Amino acid sequence: MPIYTAPTQDMQFVLHDVLNVSASDIPGYDEMDRETTQAILEEAGKLSENVLAPLNPVGDEQGCTLENSVVRTPEGFKDAYDQMREGGWMGLDADPEYGGQGMPYLMGSAVGEMFVSANMAFNMYQGLTHGAYSAIHAHGSDAQKATYLPKMIDGIWSGTMNLTEPHCGTDLGLIRTKAEPQDDGTYKISGQKIWISAGEHDMSENIIHLVLAKAPGGGEGTKGISLFIVPKFLVNEDGSLGERNSLSCGGLEKKMGIHGNATCVMNYDGATGYLIGELHKGMRAMFTMMNEARLGVGLQGYAQGVVAYQNALGFARDRLQGREVTGVKNPDGPADPIIVHPDVRRNLLDQKSFVEGARAFVFWGAQMIDASHRKGDEEAEAMISLLTPVIKGFLTDKGFETTVLAQQTLGGSGFTREWGLEQFVRDARITMIYEGTNGIQSLDLVGRKLGLNGGKTIMAFFDMVKNYIKDNAGDEAFDRDFLEPLKKASKDLQAAGMYFMQNGMKNPHNALAGSYDFMHLFGHVCLGLMWARMGKAAMAALETGEGDQDFYRAKLETGRYYMARQLPMTGTHLARIESGAEPVMTLDAANF
Amino acid sequence: MPIYTAPTQDMQFVLHDVLNVSASDIPGYDEMDRETTQAILEEAGKLSENVLAPLNPVGDEQGCTLENSVVRTPEGFKDAYDQMREGGWMGLDADPEYGGQGMPYLMGSAVGEMFVSANMAFNMYQGLTHGAYSAIHAHGSDAQKATYLPKMIDGIWSGTMNLTEPHCGTDLGLIRTKAEPQDDGTYKISGQKIWISAGEHDMSENIIHLVLAKAPGGGEGTKGISLFIVPKFLVNEDGSLGERNSLSCGGLEKKMGIHGNATCVMNYDGATGYLIGELHKGMRAMFTMMNEARLGVGLQGYAQGVVAYQNALGFARDRLQGREVTGVKNPDGPADPIIVHPDVRRNLLDQKSFVEGARAFVFWGAQMIDASHRKGDEEAEAMISLLTPVIKGFLTDKGFETTVLAQQTLGGSGFTREWGLEQFVRDARITMIYEGTNGIQSLDLVGRKLGLNGGKTIMAFFDMVKNYIKDNAGDEAFDRDFLEPLKKASKDLQAAGMYFMQNGMKNPHNALAGSYDFMHLFGHVCLGLMWARMGKAAMAALETGEGDQDFYRAKLETGRYYMARQLPMTGTHLARIESGAEPVMTLDAANF
Repeated sequence: MPIYTAPTQDMQFVLHDVLNVSASDIPGYDEMDRETTQAILEEAGKLSENVLAPLNPVGDEQGCTLENSVVRTPEGFKDAYDQMREGGWMGLDADPEYGGQGMPYLMGSAVGEMFVSANMAFNMYQGLTHGAYSAIHAHGSDAQKATYLPKMIDGIWSGTMNLTEPHCGTDLGLIRTKAEPQDDGTYKISGQKIWISAGEHDMSENIIHLVLAKAPGGGEGTKGISLFIVPKFLVNEDGSLGERNSLSCGGLEKKMGIHGNATCVMNYDGATGYLIGELHKGMRAMFTMMNEARLGVGLQGYAQGVVAYQNALGFARDRLQGREVTGVKNPDGPADPIIVHPDVRRNLLDQKSFVEGARAFVFWGAQMIDASHRKGDEEAEAMISLLTPVIKGFLTDKGFETTVLAQQTLGGSGFTREWGLEQFVRDARITMIYEGTNGIQSLDLVGRKLGLNGGKTIMAFFDMVKNYIKDNAGDEAFDRDFLEPLKKASKDLQAAGMYFMQNGMKNPHNALAGSYDFMHLFGHVCLGLMWARMGKAAMAALETGEGDQDFYRAKLETGRYYMARQLPMTGTHLARIESGAEPVMTLDAANF
Repeated sequence: MPIYTAPTQDMQFVLHDVLNVSASDIPGYDEMDRETTQAILEEAGKLSENVLAPLNPVGDEQGCTLENSVVRTPEGFKDAYDQMREGGWMGLDADPEYGGQGMPYLMGSAVGEMFVSANMAFNMYQGLTHGAYSAIHAHGSDAQKATYLPKMIDGIWSGTMNLTEPHCGTDLGLIRTKAEPQDDGTYKISGQKIWISAGEHDMSENIIHLVLAKAPGGGEGTKGISLFIVPKFLVNEDGSLGERNSLSCGGLEKKMGIHGNATCVMNYDGATGYLIGELHKGMRAMFTMMNEARLGVGLQGYAQGVVAYQNALGFARDRLQGREVTGVKNPDGPADPIIVHPDVRRNLLDQKSFVEGARAFVFWGAQMIDASHRKGDEEAEAMISLLTPVIKGFLTDKGFETTVLAQQTLGGSGFTREWGLEQFVRDARITMIYEGTNGIQSLDLVGRKLGLNGGKTIMAFFDMVKNYIKDNAGDEAFDRDFLEPLKKASKDLQAAGMYFMQNGMKNPHNALAGSYDFMHLFGHVCLGLMWARMGKAAMAALETGEGDQDFYRAKLETGRYYMARQLPMTGTHLARIESGAEPVMTLDAANF
C-alpha cells in the first residue's frame, strides 16, 4: 500500500522563507506566524496520513454504488467525513460570520494539498461544497446566506455545481435545462445534468445543488443563463429539512479513476429552485465557482504528483538492482539501491523539481487571492486572473506527467494495483479534463487573459520578472544558475506574446494554434521564477548556517536542476508557436 | 464502444510508395507485390475489426480468473484464438520447414499492428508464443525444433518467457531459480518467476515455458545463467502430451491494464526442463527473444496510439461545440464540429503525425531484420541493433502520450469507461515498462549501442541521414519544410553524441545522465527521416496526378506538421544533455 507523509517542512519553507507571510500587510496574515502554521499543518498532516490516505485504495477498489436512487460511498468514508467536520476543517478559510474560522485562503490551500494528496476522491466532496459556498457567499441574498452557509461550512450539508449536459460541456450556450418562474418567486427546474461530482451520496444530510438553467426571456446562448440553488431537501423556515425536492441521481458514471467520488447523472423534474444573483446573469455567478475550482484543480494536479513522488522515492531507496557505474555504493548488499543510477535520479528530480515548484506557485497564487479578497488589491486580482489558466492547465498536465514518471520509477511494480502508483495516475488524469479542459484553459489565457486591462496585466508580469532579476543580480553562481535561465525563458515568453500581437490580428488562428504551447511556456517561466525565489531563500538560510542545512542545500540543488533541465523547454514551445497557424490549419478535416 | 478501422491504405503507402518492398533484393520480398499485400492486409483487417476489436472491452471488463490453478480467459477469447489459428495467422512469418508460411517479418509486423490495435491483451498470447518460437528456432537442437515448433506455429501450443523474479527484474544476475542436472540429461527447475504474461490460460493445449535458471558451476552473475524449455505437459516421443510437469500458476497480478492477458506468478517445483543452447550461456539465447520482443513492444506502443487516434478523430468530427473563430463552419447545426478549432487540430495532428511516422519507422526496422535474416546483411543487422532501444523506448513513450492526447480530445467522455479511450491509455502504459523499462533502453542505447562496431554503426546512421539530405535536395519547398529541419535535428543528435564522447570518458555520469534525452532526440531524428521519405513519396505521387490525391496531400501536410511542431524538441533534449551530470548527481540520496 502506498504511503503518504505530510510535507510540513516544505510548506513552512514556502510560507515563511519564501512568501514571508506573517510580514505581509494582507489582513489576517499576521496570524500566520511560524508556530501557528506549524500547528495547523501538523494536525492536518495527521488526519491526512492516518485517516485519509489509508482510505484511498479502499475508495478506488470499492467505488460508489447506486441502489434505489441512493448512493453509497466506500466503507469508511462517512467516518472520515465526520472527523473532517468535527475538526472544523471544512470551514477553515470560511467567513466567521457564518461559522467559519476565517483563516486565509492560502492556509486552506496548504491544508487542501495534504487532503488531496492523501485522498483526492474523498476530498472532492468537501471541495465542491467549498465552491458552492463561495458562490452563495458572493452572490446570494442575506437570507440565502443565512439559510445555507452555516450548514455548508459545518459540512452537515454539502454542495455541487451543475453545468454539463449530455450535448454540451464547454459550449454552455447550448444548455437546455429550463427554469419556469412560479408565482411565489421560485422556479421549477427541469432537465438533465451529467458528470456531477458528489451529486448524491450518504455523508451529508442535505445537498445544495447550484444549477445553470435557462429562464424565459433571456435570449440565445450564454446570455440567457441563470444560476439556481436547488436543494435536495427543501428547507423549512426554521432551518429544518422539509420535503424531498423533485430531483434524483439517475446513474453513476464508470470512470478511469476517482472511483471514491460519485459522478452522477442528475435529473431535475420540476424541482424547486431559487434564483441566485441576477436573472440571466448566471454565468457571472458561476465563474466565481469556476475560478476557485480551477485553482483547486491545479492544486489537485500537483498534489497527486507529490504523493506519487514520495512513493517513487521510497522505492528507489529500497530497491536493490545493479551497481553504480563508477563504484559500488552498497558493498554489503547484493546490489545498490536504484537511486544511485543517473537515469533514476533524472526521473526523480523531474518529479521533485516540479512538485516543489508547483507548490510555491499555487501558494503564491493563493496569496494573491487573499490580497484581492482581503484588501481589495486590484493588481493582485488581475494577476491571479491571468495566471489561473496557467495554474490549472500547466500544473495538471505536469502533475499527471509526474504520476506517470513516478510509476515508471517502480518498473513493473508501478503497473500493479498493489503498489498504488497506478491509482495516482488514474486519479490525476481527470484534472486535465474537468473544470474546463486544458485546451479551454489555453484559449482562456490567449483569447481573454492576455488582453486583460488592455494588456497591462501581462506587461506587469513581465516587469515583475525583469525587476526580480535586476533586484537579485550580483551573486555569480546565482546569476549563472538561476537568473540567466530565467531571463532566457522570460524572453521566450515575451517573444511568443509579440508573435501573437503581430500575427494574431490578421489571423486569430496564428494565436490559437499556439495557445497550448503558450500556456506551457508561461508555466515554465512561473516555475522558473518560483525556483529563483526558493533558491534565493535557501541561499540566505545557508549563509546563516542555522536550521536544517541539508534541507536548504537540497532546495538549492533541486532549483538548479529545474533551471538546467526543465526551463529549456521554453525554446521548443516558442519554436512551435512561431511556426504559426499554417501547419495546423491546412489539412482539410475530411482528410485527417 | 470504441471503433477500429484497419489502416490498409496507410500501410500500403509505407510498403510500396516509401519502402518499395517488391523491388528489394531481400529474398522473399518479390512476393510482396501490391496485390498480395493488399489481400493479406484486408483479411487481417477484417479479423481485427470484426473479431478482435469487439472483444477488447470485454477482456478489459472481465479480466482473467484463477481457480484451482486453472486460468480462465475472458469470454470469447478462445473462439477468437481458434479463428487466428485456423486462418494461419500465427505462423505467417514462421519457417515453412516447420509449417509456417514463410512471409517476411515485415509482413508479420504489418499484420501485427492491426491485431495489437484491435486487442493488445489478446494478441500478447500469440506474441509471446512467437518470441519463444524464435528462441527455439535460433538456439534449439533439431530434435527440439521438431518437437515444439510445428505446434507453436500452429498455435495449438503457446509459449512464454520467464525472466523476472520478485527481487530482480533488470538485474538478472541476481536470479535464484535453480536448475539441477539429472542423470538423463534433463534438469530439475525450482524457483519462482513473476509477471509471466500468458503463463497459464485455457486457449492452448500445452504451454512451452522458456525459463532462465542457474545450473551449478556457472559462477556469479549473468554468466551463470542458462535457458531451459519447461513445458506445462511433458511431450511423449510420438509428440502426444504426457504427464503434467511440476509447475503451476500461483497467482494472477491485478494490473492497471491488459486485463485480458494473464500475468502469472509461476512456481517451478522441480519441474523437468531441457537445456536450450549452451550451458551457462542462456542470456545470449534469451536476447534473441528480447530483441524481437522489444521491437514488438515498440509496435504495441504506437499501435495503441493508432486506435486511440481513430476514436479521437471520430469524436472530433461528430461533436458539435462552439463556433470556428473566423466564421461559422456548420451553419445548419447548433455549433461547429470541434475539429474546426485550432487547438483540437493541434492535438489531433500531434497524434496523427506521430503514429504515421512511427509506423514507417517500425516497418523500416522490420525490413532491416529481414535483410539481416534473409540475406545476411551485417550492416542492416547492426543498424537495427542500434535502433532497437529507440524503437522500444521512444515509440512506447510517445505512443502512450498519444493515447493520453486522444483521451483529451474527448473531454469528459474520454475519462468514462464507456468510450474506451481510457482503456487504451491503461493498456499502452505497460509498454513503457516491460521488456526492459525505457530507462534501461536508454542505457542500452548509450552504454552499448553507440559503441557498436567501434562506433561505426552510429556513424553509418549519420552518413545515411546526410546522404539522404544531399540526394534529395533541390526542391525549394521540400528543402525548407523537410530537409532543413531534418538537418538541424540531425546536427543536434551529432552534437549530443560528441558531448558524450568528450565528457563521458572522464565521467560516465555525463553520458548516463543524458541517456533518456538522447533516446528521445534519436527518435525524433528517425521520425524526421521517415517523414522526409514519406513526404517525398507523397510529392512524387502528387506529381503524377494519379491515385488518391487527397490522401497524398494529407501525408505531405502531416509531414510538414511533424517537422514544424515536433522536431524542435531536439533542441531541448540537446540542452538537457549538455547540462551534464552535475545537476543530476549532486543531490545526496538522503536529501531527496
